Amino acid sequence: MARRVAARLAEIAPFRVMALLARARELEAQGRSIVHMEIGEPDFATPEPVAQAALAAIRAGHTHYTPALGLPALREAIAQFYLHRFGVSVAAERIVITPGASGALLLALGTVVDRDEEVLLADPGYPCNRHFIRFIEGRTRAVPVGVAERYQLTAATVAEQWCERTVGALVASPSNPTGTLIPPAELAQLSEVVEQRGGALIVDEIYGGLTYGSEPTSVLAVNDNAWVINSFSKYFCMTGWRLGWLVVPPGMVEPVERLMQNLFIAAATPSQYAALAAFQPESIEILEQRREAFRQRRDFLLPALRELGFTIEWVPEGAFYLYADSSRLTDDSEVFAGRLLEEAGVAVTPGNDFGAHRAHQHLRFAYTTSLPQLEEGVERIARFLRAGG
Amino acid sequence: MARRVAARLAEIAPFRVMALLARARELEAQGRSIVHMEIGEPDFATPEPVAQAALAAIRAGHTHYTPALGLPALREAIAQFYLHRFGVSVAAERIVITPGASGALLLALGTVVDRDEEVLLADPGYPCNRHFIRFIEGRTRAVPVGVAERYQLTAATVAEQWCERTVGALVASPSNPTGTLIPPAELAQLSEVVEQRGGALIVDEIYGGLTYGSEPTSVLAVNDNAWVINSFSKYFCMTGWRLGWLVVPPGMVEPVERLMQNLFIAAATPSQYAALAAFQPESIEILEQRREAFRQRRDFLLPALRELGFTIEWVPEGAFYLYADSSRLTDDSEVFAGRLLEEAGVAVTPGNDFGAHRAHQHLRFAYTTSLPQLEEGVERIARFLRAGG
Repeated sequence: MARRVAARLAEIAPFRVMALLARARELEAQGRSIVHMEIGEPDFATPEPVAQAALAAIRAGHTHYTPALGLPALREAIAQFYLHRFGVSVAAERIVITPGASGALLLALGTVVDRDEEVLLADPGYPCNRHFIRFIEGRTRAVPVGVAERYQLTAATVAEQWCERTVGALVASPSNPTGTLIPPAELAQLSEVVEQRGGALIVDEIYGGLTYGSEPTSVLAVNDNAWVINSFSKYFCMTGWRLGWLVVPPGMVEPVERLMQNLFIAAATPSQYAALAAFQPESIEILEQRREAFRQRRDFLLPALRELGFTIEWVPEGAFYLYADSSRLTDDSEVFAGRLLEEAGVAVTPGNDFGAHRAHQHLRFAYTTSLPQLEEGVERIARFLRAGG
Repeated sequence: MARRVAARLAEIAPFRVMALLARARELEAQGRSIVHMEIGEPDFATPEPVAQAALAAIRAGHTHYTPALGLPALREAIAQFYLHRFGVSVAAERIVITPGASGALLLALGTVVDRDEEVLLADPGYPCNRHFIRFIEGRTRAVPVGVAERYQLTAATVAEQWCERTVGALVASPSNPTGTLIPPAELAQLSEVVEQRGGALIVDEIYGGLTYGSEPTSVLAVNDNAWVINSFSKYFCMTGWRLGWLVVPPGMVEPVERLMQNLFIAAATPSQYAALAAFQPESIEILEQRREAFRQRRDFLLPALRELGFTIEWVPEGAFYLYADSSRLTDDSEVFAGRLLEEAGVAVTPGNDFGAHRAHQHLRFAYTTSLPQLEEGVERIARFLRAGG
């Protein structure tokens, strides 16, 4: 009898960027040189003090389960981080250590969204968000956003799109793929609209440490009831350690703990001990230098892409992405990305990895590689376009 | 407006053993001595070659994402393990590295079970199983099992209980909490009944390496279409590393890969490098010595518990649990467990953590502590009972 796959799988798409990356690696194995601007992963190594903390923990035999909600010392360190970095007071008890931001998203959405209930999202946005919701039989309403609202949901659009089965809104600041922020005043209005409707506001702040020209902020400064998703992957350069955290609204820790126990048992112990060192001054010093390096990359790449003919109307203030309108160069960004890889040796991600709204007119450039590599990539694209690309 | 919690949370119970463990730690902090027979975690440290492999990987900077399905070398090592340990040939492409067996269960069930579809489970059984299914809006039919069928689903019960919305059966061999196996001939019959109905057979083999008196086997020896859940936590003593694997039936890797990308991105990288050393002869030698130690503990604890008045009719052949009928000593095993902890300083898990069927007449004893500790625990229980407990 033929194998059957659950219906949800028909609506859970693969990451296109993964296939692209696989093809790029294949070309490299054939001896081709590829400039990687497709990967949403910092090129920087885990900071040395963090790696050292992991080594010490493993040598000390800290390899058993931690409590489900995480190492108490790490939850406390994160609470202190909110206090000193953002001036926000949040009880350590409300901080849950998760297997990556992915784990935090699954916990938050699983606690908030019932079958057939709806969550508002921006299109373009992080593709997994709609898949998490589909996974648990919820629905998403993808709201097309553009440069006019800095590619973000606004209080006005949320009020307009909210319907009877809507239970929340999920935003990301800075956003993937656009790198744009939601200013605190706008976050406060958004919070009010969601609160008035008895809904949940979930804010993905995994790129929160990576802002350029302004100091990082958190939604918790304006809304203590928000669900906050965060991660050690991006700002802290700890992708492979699979560690994130969730700040849970007051009164919601108990159900989240039950889900955490049942779905994950706990996050990885060596990763949690490593992360304890992430907040030390010597780690933060390294990470702030890298933030400056990311800013320099953005400041090189943005005008360079504009000169090549891409349109980027709003200067993204964070993350490590540029979401470029490619419509003056191509009608089909996916075909264009394929040709850039095969013919020019430059890997970038087509817009359709992030939604449907004007997706074929956009490309995401990640500046997760060195300035010389970015320069080489721009030069290759220029040559490709001169050759009639 | 009052915060709302999704309906599924009403049916997702906490681990009682966690509250018990927390209370035990509290008593210890007050200076009380507690014998721990509640924890499903080996007391043994991660084998030294495994820890060394993690240290080397971290020093070498292997801390970025791996491919979603896992390190190719680890998938290949597991395929070789099946070949040499069980004489079973399974392609490395069908092996998916997951964040613990928990991750493997979520992937398998998420691929197989749609909303309102049903999975057959044994009661008593691992409590998270029904919660994973509830999480994705599926249903479970808990089939009461007893000593007559060695606390396992049989081909006959599955055939009898299967209904229109049933899509699969989930069994564990050895089982938690009972430690009993499903013999290969019975697994073959079970497979046939499930296959005939076009369903999925999911077999939890996380205690598969821990059998006493017989060599470990795998369902794959009799059924290439089974979903197999496994873990580095139990036999390999790597709980805190949060690493497991899933063997996916032929033709099902593609949807599982999509789920893996979206739900988890990948399992933790240092853990994956550590696990590469788990299959080396020097690791296996350590682990086989521990298997022998577990057998000795079982062989001490089983007659000792019988002498105390507990009933254990079938000698469990695996895992590190004894599921003891306490009905000659108490009408309420939860109250009894509470008193054992508070008055005798012995932590054990009441049956209602594992289901509803005769749960109040059972206690689970984990022999995850040393023989001297087990002896001390038995002595304390004897004293408690003599005092009229």
